[in-house]
Amino acid sequence: MAHDEEHLKSSDFISDIVIGMSDGLTVPFALAAGISSAVQSNGLVVTACIAEIVAGSIAMGLGGYLAGKTELDHYKTELKREYQETIDYPEIEKREVKEIFEVMGLSQQSQNMAVEELVKDTDKWVKFMMKYELNLEEPDKNKARKSAFNIGMAYVVGGAIPMLAYVFTSTPQTGFKFSFIITVICLLVFGYFKSKLTGQKPIMGALKMMAIGVIAAMSAYFLVKLFN
Amino acid sequence: MAHDEEHLKSSDFISDIVIGMSDGLTVPFALAAGISSAVQSNGLVVTACIAEIVAGSIAMGLGGYLAGKTELDHYKTELKREYQETIDYPEIEKREVKEIFEVMGLSQQSQNMAVEELVKDTDKWVKFMMKYELNLEEPDKNKARKSAFNIGMAYVVGGAIPMLAYVFTSTPQTGFKFSFIITVICLLVFGYFKSKLTGQKPIMGALKMMAIGVIAAMSAYFLVKLFN
Repeated sequence: MAHDEEHLKSSDFISDIVIGMSDGLTVPFALAAGISSAVQSNGLVVTACIAEIVAGSIAMGLGGYLAGKTELDHYKTELKREYQETIDYPEIEKREVKEIFEVMGLSQQSQNMAVEELVKDTDKWVKFMMKYELNLEEPDKNKARKSAFNIGMAYVVGGAIPMLAYVFTSTPQTGFKFSFIITVICLLVFGYFKSKLTGQKPIMGALKMMAIGVIAAMSAYFLVKLFN
Repeated sequence: MAHDEEHLKSSDFISDIVIGMSDGLTVPFALAAGISSAVQSNGLVVTACIAEIVAGSIAMGLGGYLAGKTELDHYKTELKREYQETIDYPEIEKREVKEIFEVMGLSQQSQNMAVEELVKDTDKWVKFMMKYELNLEEPDKNKARKSAFNIGMAYVVGGAIPMLAYVFTSTPQTGFKFSFIITVICLLVFGYFKSKLTGQKPIMGALKMMAIGVIAAMSAYFLVKLFN
């Protein structure tokens, strides 16, 4: 019997790339669209895109890396606190374990049995509280670093796509048209894969991602026109 | 006995505002810094900031809203699948429940008792699998919508801060200096509160948030100079 559990799972690397690239597509695309409505030279649009890509990739990459480190520190602090609590307030911590089993739907008898078994081994007890009371699992430090780097790099590549249209055309108006066409295609493709990777409906996901990009770009375009 | 469990908790509203505002500070600040190194007029810096703030707030707000809706759809799909699995493969699903209790550290006897109790009530059984096998809790649709709106609006306010320095000065160089001073102060303040809200060390968090903004801004500044 082939019991095929197809709940979401995918390679971290691929999903980092898709996340970074699809975010990188959206904001620089919309930024360039907005500026293109106000300036006469492609040089200024490209300058702004470069600044945005650098800013966005560092904010996303470095921000993600530091958040990962903070998460690890946080895990360690909470772990220490939980160990201390099993010493300082064993009865209260036991009651908390019991409550978790109660919420799961176990009977009084099973709750008591399970609690007594768990608290015999402090490591198991603390691991249980970390996971089921605090919803914390030990973060992987290397994964956070790699993930931040991959997302940051993918953001750069994603951001280069809408920008290139302005590099290879001579007026912001033409640049905007080509940028729009190329980016919409890319947003659809990345939205499709992003949804597939996270177990969503791919066509719907592709349309949603395109909609975010197009709405952001059109809003930036018209708002900048309004302010100028 | 005052057993003070100070694990992280805070108002959703406040934390949305702090997240949106601190992200809004970082990217428009760095973007403006980058552009200020290449242009002679504050008008262009402000135009680019407006485009970025619109783009970023829509990408973050609308993106967050649609992601919230997708999460809800995903939850419903998985819920339906789990119900179906308890009908199609009850033995396998029971074994999965047992394995979860095994990993928790319960004895064989308690595992069996707990499994038998759970599977008597299909709703409890499915709720258990959703939470402990798939790590999914029912998302709150209204919360996602409100959260997306708050983050988007806070991004606009955050982004306006580094921009205003260019509105009220007459050259990009002066604008950059004022923008830098004001934004660094705001990054420190928001980093401090953001860390407090999420249970991190506030001083360290303030310095990290400032570092991300300053590194992004300096990188954008010098890279744009290089390309021009």
